[in-house]
Amino acid sequence: MNPSLRLTVLCLVAVLVGPGCASGPEPAASEPRAPHGVGDLLIRNASLLITMDPALGEGPLGIVEGGDVLLEGGRIAAVGRGLEGRGRKSLDASGKIVMPGFVDTHDHLWQSIIRGCAADRDLYGWLEACVYPLGRVPFGAQDAYAAVRLATLGLIGTGVTTVLDWSHAFNPGFVEGNLRALRDSGLRFVFAYWVAPPGGCSEAARIQQDLVGEGLAAGFQVAAHPTLANLDQLKEAARCAGELHVPLNVHLGESPKDPQQKQVRALELSGAFDGSLLADHAIHLTDREVELLARHRVAVAHNPLSNMRLASGIMRLPEMHGAGLRIGLGLDGGTADGPDMFASMKAAVGLQRARLQSASAYPGIADVLRMATLGGAEALGLDKITGSLTPGKRADLIILDTKGANFAPRWDGPSQIVLNGQPANVEYVFVDGRALKAEGRLPEGQEKNAVQAVEAAAHRVRAALSASGVRPPAGGD
Amino acid sequence: MNPSLRLTVLCLVAVLVGPGCASGPEPAASEPRAPHGVGDLLIRNASLLITMDPALGEGPLGIVEGGDVLLEGGRIAAVGRGLEGRGRKSLDASGKIVMPGFVDTHDHLWQSIIRGCAADRDLYGWLEACVYPLGRVPFGAQDAYAAVRLATLGLIGTGVTTVLDWSHAFNPGFVEGNLRALRDSGLRFVFAYWVAPPGGCSEAARIQQDLVGEGLAAGFQVAAHPTLANLDQLKEAARCAGELHVPLNVHLGESPKDPQQKQVRALELSGAFDGSLLADHAIHLTDREVELLARHRVAVAHNPLSNMRLASGIMRLPEMHGAGLRIGLGLDGGTADGPDMFASMKAAVGLQRARLQSASAYPGIADVLRMATLGGAEALGLDKITGSLTPGKRADLIILDTKGANFAPRWDGPSQIVLNGQPANVEYVFVDGRALKAEGRLPEGQEKNAVQAVEAAAHRVRAALSASGVRPPAGGD
Repeated sequence: MNPSLRLTVLCLVAVLVGPGCASGPEPAASEPRAPHGVGDLLIRNASLLITMDPALGEGPLGIVEGGDVLLEGGRIAAVGRGLEGRGRKSLDASGKIVMPGFVDTHDHLWQSIIRGCAADRDLYGWLEACVYPLGRVPFGAQDAYAAVRLATLGLIGTGVTTVLDWSHAFNPGFVEGNLRALRDSGLRFVFAYWVAPPGGCSEAARIQQDLVGEGLAAGFQVAAHPTLANLDQLKEAARCAGELHVPLNVHLGESPKDPQQKQVRALELSGAFDGSLLADHAIHLTDREVELLARHRVAVAHNPLSNMRLASGIMRLPEMHGAGLRIGLGLDGGTADGPDMFASMKAAVGLQRARLQSASAYPGIADVLRMATLGGAEALGLDKITGSLTPGKRADLIILDTKGANFAPRWDGPSQIVLNGQPANVEYVFVDGRALKAEGRLPEGQEKNAVQAVEAAAHRVRAALSASGVRPPAGGD
Repeated sequence: MNPSLRLTVLCLVAVLVGPGCASGPEPAASEPRAPHGVGDLLIRNASLLITMDPALGEGPLGIVEGGDVLLEGGRIAAVGRGLEGRGRKSLDASGKIVMPGFVDTHDHLWQSIIRGCAADRDLYGWLEACVYPLGRVPFGAQDAYAAVRLATLGLIGTGVTTVLDWSHAFNPGFVEGNLRALRDSGLRFVFAYWVAPPGGCSEAARIQQDLVGEGLAAGFQVAAHPTLANLDQLKEAARCAGELHVPLNVHLGESPKDPQQKQVRALELSGAFDGSLLADHAIHLTDREVELLARHRVAVAHNPLSNMRLASGIMRLPEMHGAGLRIGLGLDGGTADGPDMFASMKAAVGLQRARLQSASAYPGIADVLRMATLGGAEALGLDKITGSLTPGKRADLIILDTKGANFAPRWDGPSQIVLNGQPANVEYVFVDGRALKAEGRLPEGQEKNAVQAVEAAAHRVRAALSASGVRPPAGGD
């Protein structure tokens, strides 16, 4: 055992049994890399085990009551009742719910630095005020690291284990800081890289190659924006995605104004439908366009809280599902603001029920839980390795404490996760078998360090925005 | 100083500086009464003080940056910068937000015991499965106490300081347990009592008289349900409310089926519009009915999360506000499920923006913060004593920690409360100057005791439901 691995194991023990691993102030600029594949563990006697694999338990959620999960070498080795611990460390999950970690299918992690910006504007108003100007000011590695670091801690807090980070990739330094924070987080991630011409694809290839070293912990996609006016750029991005054998990831029909840009036509002409495509939002689409997406097996990321905040509209989720599209749930960065997968699931269910005045509207409780886990993994093409507790998959799972005043008494666990759950109920978060949150807390000092670093970065970014004529919001500091 | 008051003060000190006051297992059946009006305190140097009183600070929210609040004798004695502590205990609020506590304008606190019940049904389906049968089974004082106790702890957790509890008053024992838990909570409360014939009004008068002893801590209303088919009962309730000089409180236009019951016509015929009236939900109303409500100065409780869960529809909130109605925000018991005022505010804003595809739709951020505090107090007729930090009002306020990974970095505080806030960010909750939550925690043992008690009560209630033919939900235990 090499010294760093030994330290890691000691830290893991500390995280599992004590107040956390950090034993002093951590550097603000960078955090230790997250180790993977350590910490064999038997999680015993969960009151409710939601495997999300119908072959393993009852119903569509594959429920096992009083079940165990054995984690070995970062993978799920076994699921069932009365498993043998074989001398391994064990964790008592009596009275608790164990389920796959959430998959955040669409996010922009750097946007934690602009939380609260232009809360009274719609999508394009917000982009003009809070996003586009950042391409014209210094926004480098340190700032990107701080912002993405903070966002990843927020995600871990709410039980996310896999995230797709659609990066605006403002400059090379930004990309370096963004990726470093993702690696340090311990989360499974997919980096969607904005391929800017010229030479964007060779840089994309370099980043993709660099991520190969992360193994299953990291994936890569090409990000672009589809409009008929910028068809050449879209063609180049689609060509690049094909060349690298990765999906193209685009915002589609998010604003009521988007149909004017003939986005679907642009995607057709660019050849994007010939490859793998992930479409974010997908609100303002005609029936014919929905059918076209389904025919080309496009995956979709639904972001209900963002769509509400930015006045984007309500996705026709039941119709999209009916057409056979794979759909995951996303938090969508600065625009959903708080990282809260429970509020997001509640909104996904409630928006359709309120719109259609029907409690049987898709998604129901089981549907939205699947959407937030295995459905998201399918949308990202990661369902072979995560999204359910199927033995052989990576050990990405969470433990929920159901004894809080907001959650108890447990009667219908799946419904209460969606309707009663809060991030504070997330007691443990495991990715690749490693505990990123334990006993309801992040390792000591992580949150404080990250907040300090992002406040300093926000100060720099806001000063630069101000110098370029962007005014801070009223009541800002 | 009498011994019990001395103990109270010692407890308050413990709550403010340490891990809580309880020093051993508390009785499950009943909890110590909440003392009022103790604990003078200077809250110093809040980064953002939202007074909700435009006369005290900037803008519609009356914002003071770097402000202090002096609490004396359970009241707000002064608000401003650089206040003198006059030797009083002080609490440093640097980096934090101080604001009025939330007013939950509509709730059914006993429904914590049926969390998760029939999550796939609309309003009437859920009532049939989870509420109506409870009138036919033993559901007594101990069960009601346990359920309401748990609910009040959930409310305190999310920063509520005043609640209207619309009680189904199943039987006299239930009412006794319900009221005892409300008194023990330390919350300011309004008890809306279902006046069942015959003799309901004399019992109502007795309860009202009994609550007089609580002073400003408790209020009373008469609860009824308006339909043309039960006009006599409604007339009796309206007469009773008039006789007791309290508002009548009714569910109105909640379900798409409700207009068939000619509810507004029934209210007209019953004389309810001649007195003070609070209408809950108010979704399915014609323009003429909205105008009628406004003309009679009816107050309205909006419950967006419940309306989403129960497929009730989307209230035409901008139109209601435009007509001049007073509107508060409610959590609505079992149907909004989790007590989360932040998710509720987000939903109130986001539903209208998504419906109208306009980011300038009412309510904006300042509007919804007002609705969740002073607006709710106005709807309950309590705005003379709570809802803003105006000197002379009771000291009902909360302190929010903005340094969490879900909230930082602070830029636009009010927007971030609504868009980023989570119950876990509520660090202190004061009612009448007494800390009900301190350092982010309820007093030690309270939550654990309450959960144990409600689990036992839920077991009894479910067994009784089962014996009367009501089946538990799938996956229930």
